[in-house]
Amino acid sequence: MPITDPAGLSPTLQLAFELIRRPSVTPDDLGCQALMIERLAALGFHIERLPFGEVENFWATRGHHGPLLAFAGHTDVVPSGPPTRWDYPPFEPCIDDDGMLRGRGAADMKGSLAAMVTAVERFVAAHPEHHGQIGFLITSDEEGPAVDGTRAVVEHLRERHERLDYCIVGEPSSTARLGDVIKNGRRGSLGGVLHIKGVQGHVAYPHLARNPIHQALPALDALTREHWDSGNDFFPATSFQISNIRSGTGATNVIPGEVEMVFNFRFSTELTHEQLRQRTAAILDAHGLDYQLDWTLNGEPFLTAEGELVEAAVLGVEEVMGHRPELSTSGGTSDGRFIATLGSQVVELGPLNATIHQVNERIRAADLDELSRVYEAILKRLFINGSARP
Amino acid sequence: MPITDPAGLSPTLQLAFELIRRPSVTPDDLGCQALMIERLAALGFHIERLPFGEVENFWATRGHHGPLLAFAGHTDVVPSGPPTRWDYPPFEPCIDDDGMLRGRGAADMKGSLAAMVTAVERFVAAHPEHHGQIGFLITSDEEGPAVDGTRAVVEHLRERHERLDYCIVGEPSSTARLGDVIKNGRRGSLGGVLHIKGVQGHVAYPHLARNPIHQALPALDALTREHWDSGNDFFPATSFQISNIRSGTGATNVIPGEVEMVFNFRFSTELTHEQLRQRTAAILDAHGLDYQLDWTLNGEPFLTAEGELVEAAVLGVEEVMGHRPELSTSGGTSDGRFIATLGSQVVELGPLNATIHQVNERIRAADLDELSRVYEAILKRLFINGSARP
Repeated sequence: MPITDPAGLSPTLQLAFELIRRPSVTPDDLGCQALMIERLAALGFHIERLPFGEVENFWATRGHHGPLLAFAGHTDVVPSGPPTRWDYPPFEPCIDDDGMLRGRGAADMKGSLAAMVTAVERFVAAHPEHHGQIGFLITSDEEGPAVDGTRAVVEHLRERHERLDYCIVGEPSSTARLGDVIKNGRRGSLGGVLHIKGVQGHVAYPHLARNPIHQALPALDALTREHWDSGNDFFPATSFQISNIRSGTGATNVIPGEVEMVFNFRFSTELTHEQLRQRTAAILDAHGLDYQLDWTLNGEPFLTAEGELVEAAVLGVEEVMGHRPELSTSGGTSDGRFIATLGSQVVELGPLNATIHQVNERIRAADLDELSRVYEAILKRLFINGSARP
Repeated sequence: MPITDPAGLSPTLQLAFELIRRPSVTPDDLGCQALMIERLAALGFHIERLPFGEVENFWATRGHHGPLLAFAGHTDVVPSGPPTRWDYPPFEPCIDDDGMLRGRGAADMKGSLAAMVTAVERFVAAHPEHHGQIGFLITSDEEGPAVDGTRAVVEHLRERHERLDYCIVGEPSSTARLGDVIKNGRRGSLGGVLHIKGVQGHVAYPHLARNPIHQALPALDALTREHWDSGNDFFPATSFQISNIRSGTGATNVIPGEVEMVFNFRFSTELTHEQLRQRTAAILDAHGLDYQLDWTLNGEPFLTAEGELVEAAVLGVEEVMGHRPELSTSGGTSDGRFIATLGSQVVELGPLNATIHQVNERIRAADLDELSRVYEAILKRLFINGSARP
């Protein structure tokens, strides 16, 4: 029988239940942040609600001196899709017979939020006069446009010249077992929309037309074959992918006048987005194309190659879990890209990501208690054992 | 002042006015064929109405012995679009101050129909006991699907083992002045719809996906660069054109699972559609693609390289117009492709094609009288001067 009553569970799982029960699909928060704020205020945190647009955010800090370690995360979740496709209702948390905590947000990332709060509760109880400062940077728009969420809060902190030395983002970084992977950076994401212009005409008179599809093919092929870089110790090689291509009037006897293509770079710290733009344009120019190219920089790459935070996180996992995590920068973008612009050391450390954004999202319930102990261990290493340099 | 009253005009222009006045947009005939039938019946033609589906057709013959020359054409026209875009109403024929006959169908091809009828009227009046047979093969669906029109009539004639030695199609073949171009063939048209399959995925994890756009590019480029043939004395080189391409989910971060492409061959008599299919598949196979390819043969190529009809047509134009026409096989497909399957010699000879399918369709009014004389000259050369071999 699945456990649906949290009464006998650990504080971490009890809080996770309470958060998952709120169907806070982006950008709704539905009281999740109020739950966290109530717990943090009780610990003496200074609370600052920072709503932007329709997005709820808060920034909470405890302590006034020394380096600041912020826990960052989001209370919003992606939609569940039809609940009938789920084995258990997506917004009625339970622990099934296999010991899995089930529900939308269990892994991404209400479980992490609960683990952060209880880790800090135990740490503050044991070390009320701890060295350094603890912060929480929480948004309700990580899964959506991500404009009025972490990015806006970070700009707010930047304007106030607030320090943010270390940041642990609770994104589900683990792959096979809890803590096997810590993300210490993310690739950059650069998007492009390319219009290549030709001259429309009738397929029977190709000499009077200029087929933009034909013209585009060798240039696009060159872009897919280009060796942009070789990556480095922390990043795989920069990759180029065409996600959409479209041309044609629908008629089978008309040579179209234009082809539109959407592409995306995931890029390492070996090159800049300016270099990617220049090299892309150079390849298109070399093929003599008449084109228009519009760019969107979704995120700069960031990297915390080494430092006290990476060291504390690696040793914290090793201490609690008994295995040494691997550092990785793979995967999509995260709010870490915004926080890193403050000059902070940033790592992402959270539960297994196998079921995120899927039906039947779930994680091992025991993992959440261990994750909370890992977070606590990192706090101790930075602020009690003194690895943090003020 | 434009001439709107046909009373004082030539019989050819008077008949053209009457035909243009009927807005016979495909597949409607709206009495055009009845007008022609009335005139031909008066000349002793045997009339056979051959409706198929919603398409009006007729087959008319005069004479019982010797080779048969058929005039072929269509009473349907393409839509006018908004009449307000026309300088003169599209279905109210007139001759403007520059001597241009204006109206939808003036060039394509009610003018030719009128010229055919009056040419035969004069020829029969002068030579009531002429050698050979004269036919008319008229449809109201050349501009549409072309399934229940000339094709169906040709199948009907084939089943009855009727002979059709020579055919003049009245399509507007001229480019700069009347009779400068006679089409003595047309290229074939072969269409393909190609689906190339990949594996969908996230742009951040390209190693887990297989981008079908990337895979398609070198193969498509090879298809556009392939030298299919060199054409011959009568045909330009076979051409390959991609008319439509489509792939992508709309999302910028998803590698699509499939790309769809529509292409078209216009091919010469140097190769067959079977050879084109085989060579296309070989190129796709050589690139290791997972694909599905569906073909549509729109028309086989046909050619009347030489013979009595081409000779009579060339000399007929030269006699009336004073210049020697060029033989050409360029352009789209026409109903000649169906008639040629009867083993007939086929030429297309009609007015200037500069304004067909456009607003303000028009031709020089005097050209129609000359076209009628050209048709008459061809009749005389085949049936009076005796170039036709029984």
